[in-house]
Amino acid sequence: MSRLLAVDWGSSSLRGALLDDEGTVLDSRSSARGMLAVAKGSFADAFESTFGDWMDAEPTVCLIAGMAGSRQGWLEAPYCSCPAGLEELAAALVPIPDFSARGWSIALVPGLSHMSRDVPDVMRGEETQIMGALRLLGVQDARVVLPGTHSKWASVQGGRVVGFETFMSGEFFALLRQHSILKHSVADAETRPDWPAFDAGIDRAREAACLLRSAFSVRTLSLFGVHSPDASLSYLSGLVIGEELRCQALPHDQPVVVVGAAALTERYQRALSRSGVSVTALDAPAAWSGLRAIHDRSFAMGTAHEHD
Amino acid sequence: MSRLLAVDWGSSSLRGALLDDEGTVLDSRSSARGMLAVAKGSFADAFESTFGDWMDAEPTVCLIAGMAGSRQGWLEAPYCSCPAGLEELAAALVPIPDFSARGWSIALVPGLSHMSRDVPDVMRGEETQIMGALRLLGVQDARVVLPGTHSKWASVQGGRVVGFETFMSGEFFALLRQHSILKHSVADAETRPDWPAFDAGIDRAREAACLLRSAFSVRTLSLFGVHSPDASLSYLSGLVIGEELRCQALPHDQPVVVVGAAALTERYQRALSRSGVSVTALDAPAAWSGLRAIHDRSFAMGTAHEHD
Repeated sequence: MSRLLAVDWGSSSLRGALLDDEGTVLDSRSSARGMLAVAKGSFADAFESTFGDWMDAEPTVCLIAGMAGSRQGWLEAPYCSCPAGLEELAAALVPIPDFSARGWSIALVPGLSHMSRDVPDVMRGEETQIMGALRLLGVQDARVVLPGTHSKWASVQGGRVVGFETFMSGEFFALLRQHSILKHSVADAETRPDWPAFDAGIDRAREAACLLRSAFSVRTLSLFGVHSPDASLSYLSGLVIGEELRCQALPHDQPVVVVGAAALTERYQRALSRSGVSVTALDAPAAWSGLRAIHDRSFAMGTAHEHD
Repeated sequence: MSRLLAVDWGSSSLRGALLDDEGTVLDSRSSARGMLAVAKGSFADAFESTFGDWMDAEPTVCLIAGMAGSRQGWLEAPYCSCPAGLEELAAALVPIPDFSARGWSIALVPGLSHMSRDVPDVMRGEETQIMGALRLLGVQDARVVLPGTHSKWASVQGGRVVGFETFMSGEFFALLRQHSILKHSVADAETRPDWPAFDAGIDRAREAACLLRSAFSVRTLSLFGVHSPDASLSYLSGLVIGEELRCQALPHDQPVVVVGAAALTERYQRALSRSGVSVTALDAPAAWSGLRAIHDRSFAMGTAHEHD
């Protein structure tokens, strides 16, 4: 075992952390060279210019999670089917050969796929955060939500993701506030949420049972002078998050684990509490713990890519 | 009674028809000078340049439905509360004085508002189409849907709209196909729907019971090679229309009246039939019949604006 360079290479950002044996972050870096900003064929250059000095100095071992493993990324890491946990992910790591001549051992963590009623679903990056959350919380069974542009709701049993679903909540919220007729009703930016308006959105989502129906009320409540632009934006946020929660089979005997940035987990926590569900919020960088855990399992299994 | 200039002045178009006593269209015109293309204060000019010769020649009486009566329009025609039918609309016409010196009698038809569980809803223009549909079909009770950017579902009893709801279906469809991640999966344009894919969308919408959840399947089914770009676009259309239908209390003892352009009513007809609901589709210009009916009622009530 040794230091590990843990990398989270998403669509819009490239972040890396130097981890010690315990997974403690010794140093970290981030850049705007997310997958969408890197031309096909330029991933090796982007990696070297961002992390080359670290790789030369000591770690030599790097594990990358996220969209860099997609078809449009550095190298495709095929999806691993659910149920899948540390063992399945470790066994399916995809080595990147570009820098093997320099002794750098780099591998991609695959995403997960899940088939439900003939409809496939996929995630890339979140599987690593889920593994990290389990490690940080010391649990093997959980209902986990990772809110975001495409929120992921996963069910974990015995350390394995047994199923998950994607909700395009963050993207719908952005489309509605920026591109729809509702843009005339909502404030451009939000400092702090207007909580009563947010709560009203949560409640309305449950009543309306359909975002196509509830969304127009952002306009009418503004038109009738009930909501200010600030309140309208928080109300819309409540409508969208409330719609996402409406569709969940929520556990009432254990907390839901919410993994994400504090500004977002705070909203989910409030909305879930309103449904009588307790929450464990985790805004620690779960990806780093996940990458450390996947690497350690790979090493223990003797499949560690540094021995390839 | 006399000829009537019937005008439908919507957000994106200005259309007018010369109607005889029976409501038969003698001539019609349309222009791109919809409300959004006309500066506040320039509505009189736009009207005169489009219809001035007709008004001078004979009709002298004009009734206007649509967004021209909104706060941003020519003159605000306050919403009329439900329940409302021909009588309430005729009594609430708002005369436009701009051309009274020239003997032109022009009035705006008000929109409708409806309050349900403290949430207001509004329509402008559709109330006139509903009145027209009732006249054309010779019915007084109906469940009517007007599909579009903002679809309206109205319940009509005894000739009065007793309640209605707005679904932002057309706008969601446009946002998702043009601005979301799904734009990479769907074809740019659609010639004819791929009906099996459309049907699959209808069925999936019912199963998923949440568009936030079902929408991502457009991407994954494309990613997994199940749907071509053409099929993906039709599937997305089915998902959105299916979601709108999922939320309706559909009558199984009478047909649903669908009022709109044939390309759209065809989809609703197919989707409703799939739910075991029969349909009366009306792609006749219901607005003209509605304006004739509202004017005739106003005349009969002695509140005809030409006598103001």
